[in-house]
Amino acid sequence: MLKSRDDKKRYYSSFTTKLEKVDVIRLRKPRVVVLGAGYGGLITVTRLQKLIGVNEADITLVNKNDYHYETTWLHEASAGTLHHDKCRYEIKDIIDNSRVNFVKDTVVEIKKDEKKIVLAQGELEYDYLVISLGSNPETFGIKGLKEYAFGITNINSSRQLREHLEYQFATYNTEEHKQEDRLVIVVGGAGFTGIEFLGELANRVPELCREYDIDHKKVRIICVEAAPNALPGFDPELVEYAVNHLQRKGVEFKIGTAIKECTEDGIVVAKDDQMEEIKAGTVVWAAGVRGNSIVEEAGFENMRGRVKVKPDLRVEGHDEVFIIGDCALIINEEINRPFPPTAQIAMQQGETCAKNLAVLVRGQGEMEEFKPDIKGTVASLGESDAVGVVFGKKVVGTKASFMKKMIDNRALFMVGGPSLVLKKGKFKFF
Amino acid sequence: MLKSRDDKKRYYSSFTTKLEKVDVIRLRKPRVVVLGAGYGGLITVTRLQKLIGVNEADITLVNKNDYHYETTWLHEASAGTLHHDKCRYEIKDIIDNSRVNFVKDTVVEIKKDEKKIVLAQGELEYDYLVISLGSNPETFGIKGLKEYAFGITNINSSRQLREHLEYQFATYNTEEHKQEDRLVIVVGGAGFTGIEFLGELANRVPELCREYDIDHKKVRIICVEAAPNALPGFDPELVEYAVNHLQRKGVEFKIGTAIKECTEDGIVVAKDDQMEEIKAGTVVWAAGVRGNSIVEEAGFENMRGRVKVKPDLRVEGHDEVFIIGDCALIINEEINRPFPPTAQIAMQQGETCAKNLAVLVRGQGEMEEFKPDIKGTVASLGESDAVGVVFGKKVVGTKASFMKKMIDNRALFMVGGPSLVLKKGKFKFF
Repeated sequence: MLKSRDDKKRYYSSFTTKLEKVDVIRLRKPRVVVLGAGYGGLITVTRLQKLIGVNEADITLVNKNDYHYETTWLHEASAGTLHHDKCRYEIKDIIDNSRVNFVKDTVVEIKKDEKKIVLAQGELEYDYLVISLGSNPETFGIKGLKEYAFGITNINSSRQLREHLEYQFATYNTEEHKQEDRLVIVVGGAGFTGIEFLGELANRVPELCREYDIDHKKVRIICVEAAPNALPGFDPELVEYAVNHLQRKGVEFKIGTAIKECTEDGIVVAKDDQMEEIKAGTVVWAAGVRGNSIVEEAGFENMRGRVKVKPDLRVEGHDEVFIIGDCALIINEEINRPFPPTAQIAMQQGETCAKNLAVLVRGQGEMEEFKPDIKGTVASLGESDAVGVVFGKKVVGTKASFMKKMIDNRALFMVGGPSLVLKKGKFKFF
Repeated sequence: MLKSRDDKKRYYSSFTTKLEKVDVIRLRKPRVVVLGAGYGGLITVTRLQKLIGVNEADITLVNKNDYHYETTWLHEASAGTLHHDKCRYEIKDIIDNSRVNFVKDTVVEIKKDEKKIVLAQGELEYDYLVISLGSNPETFGIKGLKEYAFGITNINSSRQLREHLEYQFATYNTEEHKQEDRLVIVVGGAGFTGIEFLGELANRVPELCREYDIDHKKVRIICVEAAPNALPGFDPELVEYAVNHLQRKGVEFKIGTAIKECTEDGIVVAKDDQMEEIKAGTVVWAAGVRGNSIVEEAGFENMRGRVKVKPDLRVEGHDEVFIIGDCALIINEEINRPFPPTAQIAMQQGETCAKNLAVLVRGQGEMEEFKPDIKGTVASLGESDAVGVVFGKKVVGTKASFMKKMIDNRALFMVGGPSLVLKKGKFKFF
């Protein structure tokens, strides 16, 4: 797709006039390639395009879609409580198209030793690389999950899940012999995504019941979690609040229960060596992510697709490669465990990454060390409730829900400024 | 469910005071039972409740749902161009609840010799019966149609079809290996319903493509019709207009081609002994109806569930039984073929039926003969185009589309007066 720059260099080197020499120099501008326009990648690019001049480097951003989506909002699009178009925006509206070359393509392979990226439709060479490819779902080898469970992974999977739910409700009344299992929804995982999805689902089900003339009592929402608690890592008081809230809205919890298999008809779970089959028309897998398989296949030393990075976010032994976001592994030394892969950290890494890239491109200045600044974590429980910790304080209820929306709006502001907030922001506070 | 009135009669007959005698007389009021709240049944009841006094007869209306739906609008609900709630209204809002006893139940059997109706939840006795149960789909014994094809039959089937279509579009982009067949929609039948559904579908597909990021060129709509022409019975000039209109919007026609089998993957068709498999994510069967199976099972002499009725709409040999609407067979003597089962005729029959019931209940007056008065027939081709004949004149385009909406609004007016027209009417004329 893109012509080899080496060819061009050789071609231009054969000339000797001054003009061509200038061209040669211009062609030797460092090439910065950013893979992935998620939170980390987009922040890197939008910051870098301001930090360095147009003649200082070539910036190329590669992304599978021509849009960015808000990964942290997908539980809403999946439940059908927010349209997916509200959860995404076009990349060309965010980047400075005169400074950044946007390539809509899928990354197939990173050839780190050749400094080359293989895309589905071509190849790219780089001098500096930012890997911000996001995560892949982690199914822990559980049989049938990939085939039969729905995921809250991206725009495509979210609207498929939304439509699958609608189809189950729409089909129920057409059947002479009612299959009650159609109206059973199993959510695997009571972590952050699972809980947030349950919150939306609990609000969505009454709407679906009205739309398809179904008695609300016929619907069952079951959350299965292998860990001994919902929302691991959260304050026990907040966990209790969240679980009580969802139970009041009809969600059943099976905690300390592991999904052993997912089939066409539902799931098989085990608790204390007791096996049980739960028939369900819908199984949603929301129990975790791993790093990106592209990173694993590239041969970087990794743990489940996440690469331990140096304080300046570069990879040991590859000073030209930054890894940020879900593929970067950074240890929280306070608890000696990795920081979770969150949008908040990815965006902060994007800021540091852009600054450090500018230092490298210019060959002057000092590399900055990345220090996460966790302002807070809030899990929504539907439209108007939430639980979380903000600036070290526990919050619940409408106050937490308000904070959650402010966090969502802040992410928009960070990437696209006030105009993006006005376009896609959440303003239904009470 | 309902206590036997005979029991009560015997009980009251044992008394001799004047007061009880009056009660006995009152209990002997004739019982009119109307089965089905379609166009024919609803018109019968709404006219009858005005024609006769509250002491002259007991009127009971039985219907499977607590709502009436506009059968002739279902192609819109099925395509997703009109919400199904716009196509239905509650029966209790239409009937005079102080005069008509509404029973929401499913008719299981008509015991015509015992003058009894067996319902799913109970039994009813009648002195006069109106059978206005509507039609069943006619699959002509084609293998697999019942299992795999979607129907435009009622509210339930329409919203299932709508959601199935959405699900196919939503799933397409989630698949690593794209199944192009997902976006193939086969419509079996180029009769009235088939053509009207195609008109809506042709408008809906571009919306679905936008919603799910799909290239319009990837979608195929194929109409398969066994007869040598689309819209059999229509003027050839109008047929040509309709087919051209739909072809311009991307519909492919396979005329003179019979569906031999429907499978999970699509259909098998035959033309001139040539067999062909068409893979399709959606197959819609819109090729005809027959009378109701309840009527067949009741033992009335019938042709595919339709019973030839006398000019006063009663059944030969059963002077207490009226059959109207899709289950009634009336010969159009001009062409020596049966009138097609249309809403227009069903409503006109309802008017006659109500008048004749009043005559029977009172034991005075003269029975009216039913004479269909065909004002026109218009087939819509989406939101803003149509073809048809109105008051003997051919109409096409926006004029025909306007007439179609007037016909739809008139049906509302006939049943529920101006308030129903304002609530559910179609006013987007241009």
